[in-house]
Amino acid sequence: MSIPLTRSRAADALPSWNDGAAKQAIIQFVTDVTTAGGRKFVPAAERIATFDNDGTLWVEQPMYTQFVFALDRVKTLAPQHPEWKTNEPFASILKGDRKALMATGEKGLVELIMASHAGMTTAEFESLVRDWLAKAQHPRFKRPYTELAYQPMLELLAYLRANDFKTYIVSGGGVEFMRPWTENVYGVPPEQVIGSTVKTKFELRDDKPALMRLPEVDFIDDKAGKPVAINKFIGRRPIFAFGNSDGDLEMLQWTAAGDGARFEGLVHHTDAEREYAYDRNSSIGRLDKALDEARERGWVVVDMKRDWKRVFGESFGSQG
Amino acid sequence: MSIPLTRSRAADALPSWNDGAAKQAIIQFVTDVTTAGGRKFVPAAERIATFDNDGTLWVEQPMYTQFVFALDRVKTLAPQHPEWKTNEPFASILKGDRKALMATGEKGLVELIMASHAGMTTAEFESLVRDWLAKAQHPRFKRPYTELAYQPMLELLAYLRANDFKTYIVSGGGVEFMRPWTENVYGVPPEQVIGSTVKTKFELRDDKPALMRLPEVDFIDDKAGKPVAINKFIGRRPIFAFGNSDGDLEMLQWTAAGDGARFEGLVHHTDAEREYAYDRNSSIGRLDKALDEARERGWVVVDMKRDWKRVFGESFGSQG
Ligand SMILES: [Ca+2]
Ligand SMILES: [Ca+2]
Repeated sequence: MSIPLTRSRAADALPSWNDGAAKQAIIQFVTDVTTAGGRKFVPAAERIATFDNDGTLWVEQPMYTQFVFALDRVKTLAPQHPEWKTNEPFASILKGDRKALMATGEKGLVELIMASHAGMTTAEFESLVRDWLAKAQHPRFKRPYTELAYQPMLELLAYLRANDFKTYIVSGGGVEFMRPWTENVYGVPPEQVIGSTVKTKFELRDDKPALMRLPEVDFIDDKAGKPVAINKFIGRRPIFAFGNSDGDLEMLQWTAAGDGARFEGLVHHTDAEREYAYDRNSSIGRLDKALDEARERGWVVVDMKRDWKRVFGESFGSQG
Repeated sequence: MSIPLTRSRAADALPSWNDGAAKQAIIQFVTDVTTAGGRKFVPAAERIATFDNDGTLWVEQPMYTQFVFALDRVKTLAPQHPEWKTNEPFASILKGDRKALMATGEKGLVELIMASHAGMTTAEFESLVRDWLAKAQHPRFKRPYTELAYQPMLELLAYLRANDFKTYIVSGGGVEFMRPWTENVYGVPPEQVIGSTVKTKFELRDDKPALMRLPEVDFIDDKAGKPVAINKFIGRRPIFAFGNSDGDLEMLQWTAAGDGARFEGLVHHTDAEREYAYDRNSSIGRLDKALDEARERGWVVVDMKRDWKRVFGESFGSQG
């Protein structure tokens, strides 16, 4: 259910944003495309907004949350897999040797994801994710990961929906890792979550249908995969897109290439005190080419330190 | 925009359905799941309804519409492909020899689809579909294919949406063949159309992003593929599903296997006079195993001749 905002109230819809170019650009864009009869008006049905997840809507440092889940899952399953004591990447994970783990490269990463994310039904996997998220805590903030959504971005999502946008997540993360909690945390229902997938297979188990998660990559929703997935799942080009890294560049280019009013935004992590500061040299969430292109083309670059009054929700108190 | 129907008006929402078991089952189900506080109540967000397309929402005889499009496309492109005069399946298509065409089997079919559906951008393909549909006519009814949607099913889609269902198409047909017209004809927006896909590739063409349709199958959304796609695209299990052939059996099984109130329906083509009569022995839209399972499990089987007051819209006059 959308809460209609009159234009005069629009500025109050983003209380955690400092007044500045980024906030003004957002409000100007939304005003433009929702002003009936205006030159930039866009019908409600075409108001598609897509958001990257890790580093755009919630914290991705010091490790992607889903990667932490995978490591924990390996530790849980280890007693049933004595061979993991000597086989990589599991041996390094169990020893807590992160450097040796990283040295196993993409091959190790795929084996880790398959061992932790496949070989169960979709319903079983959903339970694993829910149970893990209920217990896991972020190492620095000592809170559940789902409390580490960025308050200004939650307000932005709600502001767009109040103006009849349909908000989507388009993430490199696994779609079934996100869907159990995106509705509660972001107000984004499962059918508006697009992400990477493993292949699944329909089976009758004791005469009851089940979808088995297979140890085989179906689709990686990153970089040039993002516009491909947007087209496949939504079938409309977004008019508004937000990311935080080079993995979002093609999504932003695809959004920008449409006719009429467009908005492209990047979250730039500049705030080591309240969150993290990283960009061109980070292995997680590297922001390099996209930052150059954003400056060249006048896309909105959010400077976390300058543009956000607070990073996290009320429960953080003043340090958020 | 949904038009709220009070319960007393619900029966009038399906004027093209004769009073009978099928209509009563539909109204009973919708009343049950929308009655707040009732034992079978389902929250609006979970009211997902999935519909097969060919033979469920529009005519599929004597040939799938998309197949006719593919044949016409080959005829249009033939002058640029002199080699097609001797290469199959094109030679048989150009000679109009349907029997020889069928003899080329699945290999021929895939070559036909790739030659007619790939090698252009998604935007170009959309234009081709729009232009073709504006001109093409059904051989028997002498009307545009988009006028051959079943009036009772259009009323059912609208009735469900008026009761806060989200209506989806889940078809073996190509998703990009359907999306250009499903909103106008069925009231189903592009993002609620799921179908078969070819692989696409993001490219910069003269510095402008484009999605190229590649001559490679990505996913076939039929049979056991339907629950796989429903899970991948929607991430919720439907509570209501309608099909017309064995290709829909797994979708109906998947729907039926959920908890709480469920509705499974099949359109049985029993009306050679107003439309077509076919089931167990038809190569198009074969309804055999699913018909047996429907009877065994008490799914709703719509007898087109008996249950539908009219098959097509007003423009058909009394013969519809
Ligand atoms: Ca990211
Ligand atoms: Ca069908």
